[in-house]
Amino acid sequence: MAFSNLSILGVGLLGGSIGLGLRASANPCKIVGYGYRRETLEQAQAFGAIDRWTLDLREAVADADLVILCTPVGLFETMLKQLAPVLKPGTLVTDVGSTKRTVVRLARDLLPEANPFVGSHPMAGSEKRGVEYARADLFHNALCILTPTAGSPRSAATGLEIFWESLGMRIVRLSPEEHDAAVSDISHLPHLLAAALVSMQSRSAMPLAGKGFIDTTRIASGDARLWRDILLDNRDNVLTSLTRLQNEIATLKKLITPTKGEALTAWLASAAQRRDDLAKAKLREIADE
Amino acid sequence: MAFSNLSILGVGLLGGSIGLGLRASANPCKIVGYGYRRETLEQAQAFGAIDRWTLDLREAVADADLVILCTPVGLFETMLKQLAPVLKPGTLVTDVGSTKRTVVRLARDLLPEANPFVGSHPMAGSEKRGVEYARADLFHNALCILTPTAGSPRSAATGLEIFWESLGMRIVRLSPEEHDAAVSDISHLPHLLAAALVSMQSRSAMPLAGKGFIDTTRIASGDARLWRDILLDNRDNVLTSLTRLQNEIATLKKLITPTKGEALTAWLASAAQRRDDLAKAKLREIADE
Repeated sequence: MAFSNLSILGVGLLGGSIGLGLRASANPCKIVGYGYRRETLEQAQAFGAIDRWTLDLREAVADADLVILCTPVGLFETMLKQLAPVLKPGTLVTDVGSTKRTVVRLARDLLPEANPFVGSHPMAGSEKRGVEYARADLFHNALCILTPTAGSPRSAATGLEIFWESLGMRIVRLSPEEHDAAVSDISHLPHLLAAALVSMQSRSAMPLAGKGFIDTTRIASGDARLWRDILLDNRDNVLTSLTRLQNEIATLKKLITPTKGEALTAWLASAAQRRDDLAKAKLREIADE
Repeated sequence: MAFSNLSILGVGLLGGSIGLGLRASANPCKIVGYGYRRETLEQAQAFGAIDRWTLDLREAVADADLVILCTPVGLFETMLKQLAPVLKPGTLVTDVGSTKRTVVRLARDLLPEANPFVGSHPMAGSEKRGVEYARADLFHNALCILTPTAGSPRSAATGLEIFWESLGMRIVRLSPEEHDAAVSDISHLPHLLAAALVSMQSRSAMPLAGKGFIDTTRIASGDARLWRDILLDNRDNVLTSLTRLQNEIATLKKLITPTKGEALTAWLASAAQRRDDLAKAKLREIADE
């Protein structure tokens, strides 16, 4: 099941990279871009990320067999409401958002029965926004989490799996609930910590920052409004992650004392080992491609 | 005031990189390496990081006009005690440790009056250890913090400043107290946070880690015993930094609620802006070289 007519709603970093990636893999599908800003769409077309574009949503999805929502998470409800009356029966809808419970619920409530929805979270990106940062290889070797539910036709999830694999991604399937809990720990919390680490620096310490600090806080440069939407949408999980981190810090503070030297070493060594194992596993995954 | 006879005590990543950097800048000084392990010293000589080596401390410093302590922070007291009786009058002593109050106090208490000590903290390194990771350009464009005190002869600090500049470093002078407080925030805290972020991950979330997580936690891979020594030595400041971070997290948790959306956006945007300004300032510093 290959898609021959693709509609990308919102052609920024992710939407643009999908288009460029499909072209780089010589996928012959037709790609229509939709958005609010003519300049962005013209730029996306000039880059070769889309074949044509329109500011009219009905026109954008008229022939589509796959529609990919690439707008910020905060716009999903509006987009799905506008999509519902203009989709032809059978068109599969997915998204690239960083949270999954809300979009899956919205799609179930708002889209016609004849339009299956399966959530996608391609875990690739950048702290940069905009189609000018789009890259054909953005998704290479990265993970894509799919969140099919009991209501999703099996063929829809399989078709999407093949689609993302064609862009170089590895697939993991989780429930929307499992997804939101896991990314809260592994993605949303690191962002917040990077931002907190920057926020608490004094003006005198900041100029002393070295390469380690610059690397550690890179993800704090992400777009504030995008992140606000993600954090509010995943609020319960994010607050739980922050509480677990607070507990970890409280434990750590008790270890930073001369009589606990061995326990402190063990805590540091265990973290170093887990991080090294992870980095090695990631390298192996890339080598296995 | 150029140094013509250098003694490097502990030829690992930092000591080895000093030697390689001096050679790369065509500095004609003689470099002796000292350490406990013959294999390491042979390796350092084979790499061209030192001209010759010895396992005898007296021999290592007999002709030195500059001695650089490059052992772990936890060994400084032992090393300074052993150094005191074998230094010739006038030999300047410095170190490359990550904390400064203790080593400055130890040097004042243990070294002869005729041997000035000025602390150095070249803020360059790696999560790797060992001379096999040494690089001639490790110090290029990085910051070196010098901590001269009222008792340090002016010529000693000036000589060291020129020495580190010859390896491509930019110099900042701070008091030992200012140094330890600032690096607690900008260097020790990021390390602990990276480790805490790894430690609190569940086994199910870990495989979902993306590039952002790998970057954010890179520094957690540092050597556990080295870090234990640094953290215990700088305990008061590190505990203060952790408390300030706990307060920042507590503030943040109150912002992750729908009615505080604007304040959350402002908090995220301010962190992103400060981090971007820092990254740009670092790029400018490199461009200015």
